[in-house]
Amino acid sequence: MTYATRLTQATADRGRLCVGIDPMPSVLDAWGLSRDVAGLEACARGIVEALGDRVAVFKPQSAFFEAYGSAGVAVLERLLRDIRAAGALSLLDVKRGDIGSSMAGYAAAHLGEGAPLWADAITVSPYLGVGALRPAIDAAVAGGQGLYVLARTSNPEGATVQLARAEGDRSVAQAVADAVAELNPAADFAVGLVTGGTHESLGVDLSGFNASLLVPGIGAQGGTVESLPAIFGAATRHVLPTASREVIGHGAGELVERFERLVLATAAL
Amino acid sequence: MTYATRLTQATADRGRLCVGIDPMPSVLDAWGLSRDVAGLEACARGIVEALGDRVAVFKPQSAFFEAYGSAGVAVLERLLRDIRAAGALSLLDVKRGDIGSSMAGYAAAHLGEGAPLWADAITVSPYLGVGALRPAIDAAVAGGQGLYVLARTSNPEGATVQLARAEGDRSVAQAVADAVAELNPAADFAVGLVTGGTHESLGVDLSGFNASLLVPGIGAQGGTVESLPAIFGAATRHVLPTASREVIGHGAGELVERFERLVLATAAL
Repeated sequence: MTYATRLTQATADRGRLCVGIDPMPSVLDAWGLSRDVAGLEACARGIVEALGDRVAVFKPQSAFFEAYGSAGVAVLERLLRDIRAAGALSLLDVKRGDIGSSMAGYAAAHLGEGAPLWADAITVSPYLGVGALRPAIDAAVAGGQGLYVLARTSNPEGATVQLARAEGDRSVAQAVADAVAELNPAADFAVGLVTGGTHESLGVDLSGFNASLLVPGIGAQGGTVESLPAIFGAATRHVLPTASREVIGHGAGELVERFERLVLATAAL
Repeated sequence: MTYATRLTQATADRGRLCVGIDPMPSVLDAWGLSRDVAGLEACARGIVEALGDRVAVFKPQSAFFEAYGSAGVAVLERLLRDIRAAGALSLLDVKRGDIGSSMAGYAAAHLGEGAPLWADAITVSPYLGVGALRPAIDAAVAGGQGLYVLARTSNPEGATVQLARAEGDRSVAQAVADAVAELNPAADFAVGLVTGGTHESLGVDLSGFNASLLVPGIGAQGGTVESLPAIFGAATRHVLPTASREVIGHGAGELVERFERLVLATAAL
């Protein structure tokens, strides 16, 4: 089954909200856990234990696991297996981007059955060109997995690169979106985009885009579910709104209530 | 001691050639090693055992370690310690790039004494803006470590993003180089650039650039040491030419001879 199909089913069953697993030091503090690999594991796997049967998609942020070296990456391996066992989808936020054999190395880490850090989808970065992502795209399609290519991020510093003018007098973000849209029919709509949800104007026309749009930053980072239709227009139906600290940043006791409140808001999308 | 100072000393002592540690499947084959984590460890650490007292800078490519999951990352941890113990510098090619707390997570993995994957320098990707790299820049300067920001890569697909027109009618690669140059006086020249060594024309003016330039692709990928002055002009003195398969791709028996031949060519730079 393709990633696009699994995503449609999961969000139809469980609601269209992705929960970011960002066990950063301040989140460990809020949970009353130690800032070490044991605290990391208790927090990250605790989120899936509490919400695994309610959430359609979990998005672990690799950086917070890598911060603890190989021991943290081992926790991430266990977490990804937990998510799969709970019947939820995993979308691993790693933002990898390289060329040739190195890109193939990253693909081997995450894509294809048996990959040690297998995830339903991963995020990738196009600074070396969407074309350079080819080894990952091929591996994702073959494995029924998904990719999300960074297009327009929510941070202000992103404009320098993302709003520069690419060929055809369009923004770099638009050129990335167009290249991805062109790939998709042959790629089972496996390749989505990452686009911030806090811009008044995106600088990218996504009205014809037909794969998934990962939109982080709902809640604590300033985005709201209600503002998404004004930003994404006709493409709103492809948006996967993602909240992290808003759900997980207040300790284990508030997880279910905070998730339920936010996922309810997405029902109107 | 700053990274820039350590780099100057190491290259003065040992010659100005960086050796890429890219233990990809085809390299393991050439070494007669198995395509598994044991083969990975024998190859990667074998390179440092054979060349650790001759090479100024080793550049391990993280993707080939991550391909084996947490077990591969544990090999990378041991390799980075080997390099340090051998008195060489480590430049870890990870091309990380994220924002805020996530970027801080990557910094915690690699920067600051005690970081589990400590390296003398790491590569980073500016798709989210050079400004978004701030947590890594601050951590690198505080720890006496270095960063190399991707500017202009050698692959043809890179042009879409890197040669797009940024503010001030310059290429994105130039805008990245200018932003890095501006940072550097206050940052102890800790922040260098990654620029391909196979372009006839770079599309970036680096004549006034005053920190290190990592130039991969010497040897097997088509770049030559002899062509560097024509590409880099006055900035050639900052170039750190990097060869990987040319040195390590022919088995353990040819390591020393192949390194010695190439490092000799860099003496004229």
